[in-house]
Amino acid sequence: MKQFSPSYVVYGSHDDKYHEECGVFGILGHPDAATLTALGLHALQHRGQEAAGIVSFDGRQFYTEKHMGLVGDHYTNPVTLAKLPGPQAIGHTRYSTTGEVALRNVQPLFAELEEGGIAIAHNGNFTNGLTLRRQIIATGAICQSTSDTEVVLHLIARSRHASTTDRFIDAIRQMEGGYAMIALTRTKLIAARDPIGIRPLVMGDLDGKPIFCSETCALDIIGAKFVRDVKNGEVIICETQADGSISIESRMPARPQPERVCLFEYVYFARPDSVVAGRNVYTTRKNAGMNLALEAPVEADVVVPVPDGGTPAALGFAQQSGIPFEYGIIRNHYVGRTFIEPTQQIRAFGVKLKHSANRAMIEGKRVVLVDDSIVRGTTSLKIVQMIRDAGAKEVHVRVASPMIFHPDFYGIDTPDRDKLLANQYADEAAMAKFIGADSLSFLSIDGLYKAVGGKPRDPANPQFTDHYFTGDYPTRLVDKESEKPGRKESMLAANG
Amino acid sequence: MKQFSPSYVVYGSHDDKYHEECGVFGILGHPDAATLTALGLHALQHRGQEAAGIVSFDGRQFYTEKHMGLVGDHYTNPVTLAKLPGPQAIGHTRYSTTGEVALRNVQPLFAELEEGGIAIAHNGNFTNGLTLRRQIIATGAICQSTSDTEVVLHLIARSRHASTTDRFIDAIRQMEGGYAMIALTRTKLIAARDPIGIRPLVMGDLDGKPIFCSETCALDIIGAKFVRDVKNGEVIICETQADGSISIESRMPARPQPERVCLFEYVYFARPDSVVAGRNVYTTRKNAGMNLALEAPVEADVVVPVPDGGTPAALGFAQQSGIPFEYGIIRNHYVGRTFIEPTQQIRAFGVKLKHSANRAMIEGKRVVLVDDSIVRGTTSLKIVQMIRDAGAKEVHVRVASPMIFHPDFYGIDTPDRDKLLANQYADEAAMAKFIGADSLSFLSIDGLYKAVGGKPRDPANPQFTDHYFTGDYPTRLVDKESEKPGRKESMLAANG
Amino acid sequence: MKQFSPSYVVYGSHDDKYHEECGVFGILGHPDAATLTALGLHALQHRGQEAAGIVSFDGRQFYTEKHMGLVGDHYTNPVTLAKLPGPQAIGHTRYSTTGEVALRNVQPLFAELEEGGIAIAHNGNFTNGLTLRRQIIATGAICQSTSDTEVVLHLIARSRHASTTDRFIDAIRQMEGGYAMIALTRTKLIAARDPIGIRPLVMGDLDGKPIFCSETCALDIIGAKFVRDVKNGEVIICETQADGSISIESRMPARPQPERVCLFEYVYFARPDSVVAGRNVYTTRKNAGMNLALEAPVEADVVVPVPDGGTPAALGFAQQSGIPFEYGIIRNHYVGRTFIEPTQQIRAFGVKLKHSANRAMIEGKRVVLVDDSIVRGTTSLKIVQMIRDAGAKEVHVRVASPMIFHPDFYGIDTPDRDKLLANQYADEAAMAKFIGADSLSFLSIDGLYKAVGGKPRDPANPQFTDHYFTGDYPTRLVDKESEKPGRKESMLAANG
Amino acid sequence: MKQFSPSYVVYGSHDDKYHEECGVFGILGHPDAATLTALGLHALQHRGQEAAGIVSFDGRQFYTEKHMGLVGDHYTNPVTLAKLPGPQAIGHTRYSTTGEVALRNVQPLFAELEEGGIAIAHNGNFTNGLTLRRQIIATGAICQSTSDTEVVLHLIARSRHASTTDRFIDAIRQMEGGYAMIALTRTKLIAARDPIGIRPLVMGDLDGKPIFCSETCALDIIGAKFVRDVKNGEVIICETQADGSISIESRMPARPQPERVCLFEYVYFARPDSVVAGRNVYTTRKNAGMNLALEAPVEADVVVPVPDGGTPAALGFAQQSGIPFEYGIIRNHYVGRTFIEPTQQIRAFGVKLKHSANRAMIEGKRVVLVDDSIVRGTTSLKIVQMIRDAGAKEVHVRVASPMIFHPDFYGIDTPDRDKLLANQYADEAAMAKFIGADSLSFLSIDGLYKAVGGKPRDPANPQFTDHYFTGDYPTRLVDKESEKPGRKESMLAANG
Repeated sequence: MKQFSPSYVVYGSHDDKYHEECGVFGILGHPDAATLTALGLHALQHRGQEAAGIVSFDGRQFYTEKHMGLVGDHYTNPVTLAKLPGPQAIGHTRYSTTGEVALRNVQPLFAELEEGGIAIAHNGNFTNGLTLRRQIIATGAICQSTSDTEVVLHLIARSRHASTTDRFIDAIRQMEGGYAMIALTRTKLIAARDPIGIRPLVMGDLDGKPIFCSETCALDIIGAKFVRDVKNGEVIICETQADGSISIESRMPARPQPERVCLFEYVYFARPDSVVAGRNVYTTRKNAGMNLALEAPVEADVVVPVPDGGTPAALGFAQQSGIPFEYGIIRNHYVGRTFIEPTQQIRAFGVKLKHSANRAMIEGKRVVLVDDSIVRGTTSLKIVQMIRDAGAKEVHVRVASPMIFHPDFYGIDTPDRDKLLANQYADEAAMAKFIGADSLSFLSIDGLYKAVGGKPRDPANPQFTDHYFTGDYPTRLVDKESEKPGRKESMLAANG
Repeated sequence: MKQFSPSYVVYGSHDDKYHEECGVFGILGHPDAATLTALGLHALQHRGQEAAGIVSFDGRQFYTEKHMGLVGDHYTNPVTLAKLPGPQAIGHTRYSTTGEVALRNVQPLFAELEEGGIAIAHNGNFTNGLTLRRQIIATGAICQSTSDTEVVLHLIARSRHASTTDRFIDAIRQMEGGYAMIALTRTKLIAARDPIGIRPLVMGDLDGKPIFCSETCALDIIGAKFVRDVKNGEVIICETQADGSISIESRMPARPQPERVCLFEYVYFARPDSVVAGRNVYTTRKNAGMNLALEAPVEADVVVPVPDGGTPAALGFAQQSGIPFEYGIIRNHYVGRTFIEPTQQIRAFGVKLKHSANRAMIEGKRVVLVDDSIVRGTTSLKIVQMIRDAGAKEVHVRVASPMIFHPDFYGIDTPDRDKLLANQYADEAAMAKFIGADSLSFLSIDGLYKAVGGKPRDPANPQFTDHYFTGDYPTRLVDKESEKPGRKESMLAANG
Repeated sequence: MKQFSPSYVVYGSHDDKYHEECGVFGILGHPDAATLTALGLHALQHRGQEAAGIVSFDGRQFYTEKHMGLVGDHYTNPVTLAKLPGPQAIGHTRYSTTGEVALRNVQPLFAELEEGGIAIAHNGNFTNGLTLRRQIIATGAICQSTSDTEVVLHLIARSRHASTTDRFIDAIRQMEGGYAMIALTRTKLIAARDPIGIRPLVMGDLDGKPIFCSETCALDIIGAKFVRDVKNGEVIICETQADGSISIESRMPARPQPERVCLFEYVYFARPDSVVAGRNVYTTRKNAGMNLALEAPVEADVVVPVPDGGTPAALGFAQQSGIPFEYGIIRNHYVGRTFIEPTQQIRAFGVKLKHSANRAMIEGKRVVLVDDSIVRGTTSLKIVQMIRDAGAKEVHVRVASPMIFHPDFYGIDTPDRDKLLANQYADEAAMAKFIGADSLSFLSIDGLYKAVGGKPRDPANPQFTDHYFTGDYPTRLVDKESEKPGRKESMLAANG
Repeated sequence: MKQFSPSYVVYGSHDDKYHEECGVFGILGHPDAATLTALGLHALQHRGQEAAGIVSFDGRQFYTEKHMGLVGDHYTNPVTLAKLPGPQAIGHTRYSTTGEVALRNVQPLFAELEEGGIAIAHNGNFTNGLTLRRQIIATGAICQSTSDTEVVLHLIARSRHASTTDRFIDAIRQMEGGYAMIALTRTKLIAARDPIGIRPLVMGDLDGKPIFCSETCALDIIGAKFVRDVKNGEVIICETQADGSISIESRMPARPQPERVCLFEYVYFARPDSVVAGRNVYTTRKNAGMNLALEAPVEADVVVPVPDGGTPAALGFAQQSGIPFEYGIIRNHYVGRTFIEPTQQIRAFGVKLKHSANRAMIEGKRVVLVDDSIVRGTTSLKIVQMIRDAGAKEVHVRVASPMIFHPDFYGIDTPDRDKLLANQYADEAAMAKFIGADSLSFLSIDGLYKAVGGKPRDPANPQFTDHYFTGDYPTRLVDKESEKPGRKESMLAANG
């Protein structure tokens, strides 16, 4: 089988961004449940391109399809959709973080419980997942995937509570970290968001049927109405009743805390047209560019975005500064999924496979390059070089988010600490020298807080999750604290 | 993934045979462990053509490869073998019985235990598997495959014993039925055979390294020596010691009972060149043909085997009766793996896709057709018709095993009771009429016992497992007795 | 084989654009010829995403690889590139027009001639291709593909001239239409452009080795220098000499005529960073947007591009009009290659699979939507509706090219005449009503001429090929004039 | 595409046999033409397992499907058959000889002629194919495959005759060698056999519709009647008339000569149940074994066939000699299509992958091993060793055909002359020593003639084609005589 599993090599400028692992979608009570789930996942494709899975239930049986690759590659095929019958479905699109790449780890995961099956899909990461995993293995559980989500299934299965809802909540109470989770049972669609709302999760409505999904753009594509955000710490249980109606119950098992959405959703992850926690993402990015122009002005002839991420901020920078905005870099959109296991020689072309300089807009000019974030700086270096090669007189790099110093443990794939540009050089001047720019400036943390929330950071009670910039982790880090070097599981390397 | 999974449709004369589910192979301490396992599985291919899997361990990690299709299609590729490093490996080739067809069910199955990983492969079936499965689900276990083997893993994981060996034996003690099982841990290769030895399992030796496998033909292909049969009820634990030497320990956890090998291993399953429980299979088949000639003689011009299964018995029949042996039916060996999802029209050609009459040997002759067994009679009917169409003057069918009345629960795939030919007609004459033969005779149960073991059946203590002929089941049938109609798990339909 | 050939369904807004069939690339004398060709084709991917092929020659033998799908899907694999050895290669990326979709039609095409093999790749279409095809079949030639390019091979093979160069020119002289052609023989790389230069073709240089390709962006990606355009009507022959040096010869077999580049290269086909016939494509599009703002001003709150094609013109329109430019439509870049044979239900989501409204930029505003062209209007209708659904107060559509009335015969895939929006409605007001816009304006033909060439159209000697707008075809249309209804070849339907 | 083309490695004992390239099948006027063709090709699978192709015509258009692999792998799928509509079809199953392995070379080949399309499939080889190929390339033809069959298409296309039949005959007259050819046009099914009938071709009838195929077994599978052999030198033209009836015309364009069927059809190629030129193949093989027992008797305990080829001769040997016949070698039928690109290590297991000794029948015995033919002797060597390892006291090899000294040019794939066992050793004793046997005897040429035709060889007018044994080639060898070393075409290496 395996030779048909393309292993998408993501590299070039992509290497210099953060990655998030997943998008989730679920719907209850709609005759086209699987098709709508496929469309919703397509709209969430930017949250994970490695694999996608859907589970449906038709009143008798659960069905599952899991495939490596894009949603559209598989889930739009009538044959595939016909294998997912029934009026309720949940789906998941994945960028791998904690588990190795294997079909066996693709979500939703399923378990047969005494009272019937349950499927779970989640976006995020548990900061005590490994610790819990060890505990349940020690008491005789068998873990067959390397996914954190399997741990949730075990906690549900082992709960002493009677009802599935109580078991689910019992399990959730033991988990720590950042998550947006959706579960499907024979009659229920359940949604849960972590206690401080690090990861986003919204509720929608299509023809009176409840929907949960990671971002509002997944509602827009199917013409569903936005109802409200799932609250931080909330569990919502939708259940099909005997008369066909759907009941909706909200429970708040967690200790009440203020919401602290992950800032990177605004900086890079979420789609610009999504509304995350009440804020249009595109607008927050444009605001960030405007604040950047105020904080770090520069005399220049042209503002050039590093596409696509830097485009809204570049537009904001241009409008604020009055410097003309031009497409000085053209993006090759065919590269995203291609260049499978490239030869070393082709790999050497690096950033050029994805970006090319539009020389006519660059030559002889003082260029302000605007990007959304810099993680390692390796791609910035290549892009600056490309712009210089195209004849730029000066190259000034402006980054619409602060410097990144710290790793994430809530579902973002981050490189080793010492690979982060900000940890390698003393100041912006040294970093500018490394990437070959005439100047380099990052947006301040307050500049970003104001762009997103309108107010500077409240150090006592920060309004957002921002540890990658500040080191202020919003939760305990149980697994990390209990790390013992040398302890290694004999984990199966699945190639399937 | 799925579109690449060929679903081999086995039909035609094959439909009229029993099928067994599996062959197993394991080796400890040899640098070419995975390659030797692949070769061993190739030699055991007749025990299951649906899928094959291998797990290896290289001192640090377990590796697994599982593929639908034949061993040679995948496991001879250097790329695939390179993914299975290490000096110890176990493998499994499968014909599906209890679990639905899904890559997720392909063995060996693996579990991460507290003290390290364990992989298990088994041939056979547990008569209390479903009962145990329900019990462990009721106490919070999660079952992700529909395979009985997973239940063994759970019992091992939940055992209160400390060592893996004790846990394994603890689990084995709870299982009932017929099985030949092989397990691989970080340091051990374990083999176990059911208390009365229904399924075969032998021990071999290659350059001082222990091997376990279903039949001796898997030793022959790699030039390994036959050491001895694993005894009924025995567990053998081979372990690599710190100094590189291998210890071998035999344990007998089960109550001592006489061995009762499954007669169908001799009648149809095992390869003719294998030695099962000390008896050359080919010879037992030839003996059966000889006894058949004595029990049910007929005046005829030619003895024609139904290939390939009926050939040794036909040769025995011919030698005993003095009637010339001729190849009156030619088998098309290209059909085995082909004719994927054939059109109805092609399906109608049925037996002709696999067999054709060799008219020159048939025309104008009185033909004795010798087959190894008849299950439903549907193929016999078509073959008799084909022989008549080729101009036979008379067609006498002789079957080298007794009539089949009862289903199996020890790993043989059997049709519904009322589909069995012997349950549909009163006597041989009525059956002969159904299949269109001038006469039809089955070997007696004593005739078969004498062919295999040299003595008639001892009704007090039958020497073999023979319930399909006699209704005398050698063990309790716990699952069957506890069957409640309507109780249905919501089991996931995996398409992967 | 076939089941693995994805058939990419291009639809949604894409249906409302013109398509061009091909990009070509060739290089002589470089040790990494095939790798550089793959990179060049990747940069030309926008000219055809259906399939790509490369032929190389290593001094002894020609090698070919042809694959359905994107360049990066296949030609970056070391295994594939290793199958294309040698210092000279040509390649082709294809969007199907005249030939049906079949691997057998994928270029380059190859023929064994008496003096050695020749491979040909071309972009464009011959207006007398069918006529010539009939002539050569009538005199005993065998055509095995349905590609026009095969006709060129036949003309070369049948030429009475001795040298390959003379044979090639002899063949070229018989062809009419628009083309950019590259040929590879054992020692030569030959490039040819049609007599009036409808299709673009440029010459580059990498480390002293000659390159030909459709657009300059294919030179940029590999760091090659732009040398000059291949002139209209020119044939350039590069040949490796015995001493390893490369000779370059230019021949002008056609009657001298002024160049008339296809305007649609500027409007839509070419990549914005390419320089076509001396003009930066991005700049011509921005100019078109500026002229459009002058010709068809409108009071509005925001200028929104229909991405990606309309973006440069929208930026020009915004700069000229002073109305703010905003990303009011977000494009889903994952749709391009996906949604294989979608269900009817998914197809119904149409434009939403690719575009979504960024409500925050639209709601309550008077919106100017800027697009590059409108062919059938079906997508415009859906996009206007989507913008209205997002709460726009007014929607004014501005198109940065003139109305399209006439089909193309030079390599652009055009719908039936009566499907063109401009042929269905009397004037802009009626068309505006059809697409649901408050107003609709197209750029004038002179507006486009000025944007591209700086001067209005010279009706006596038009500077560009513009028949789709004007009906003024720049060449004879031999095939079209000789069309006889009912005459049909029994052409083989290849599924391969 | 390519990565999905399995390249079946045929090796082990197979290397020591001759291979023939093809089987052909055609039918006119039957509503299930393609399905019947698929079934016919399945019955002819033994004549070529590399690839298979079918062309059909539905009154409007020709359709083609070509696939690497077995007939049953592809042509039984309803989807594939649905792509081959129409009441007339021809098909081809192939073992590659002259052309390299490439889908482009898979037959039937098709050409568009002025008067309509024609598809051709053939079994055999033209002894002047290369010479003709050079002539037509010199006059401007383009050859795109490396198949001889393409040359026939060119000759047909270039013929000055008006009707397709006359053109076909004109082409046939120019070809020399051994062939069985089938052609399909819009209304006709044409069959042709070479002037001396080297390759077999028979005519059948199903419900009044004509069929042509290589062997009678392809008629048997679909229940068609055998009508007669196509005569050597005959061309039969079947044509659907306007009223739906089918006319059948026989033409004899070649100079009348006696028939000389290839002896190897009897020795090894044809299926035992086929009737070739009036003789049941199985009977000729058994006769050969009987004659061998008379010519080269030996004292022994058991006659063991080398399966499957040697089985009929072994049975004949046993019956004639009175020595018991036993299955001392068991064949693993799963090896045929598997072991794709095996590792060197697995390759080393060689013959054991396919054959295993049945020790109980061998140990302590004097064994007569009977095989159908020995080409290089390499496999015989391994089999003798295997039999010795199983404990044989003596091993006597008897071969049911004469020694092979000369290459074939009529469609049989033969190794280099100096690889033939008979050319490497002086006599049977020396060869016996090489293969490790106690004695070795080949059947005499007269012994084979008597087995097949009942009479010894007539040296003046040999009744069969037998040059591999005798050096007496039945036709001119034009290509061979005109061979010039160093002349090499630059032929495209197609990987597709």
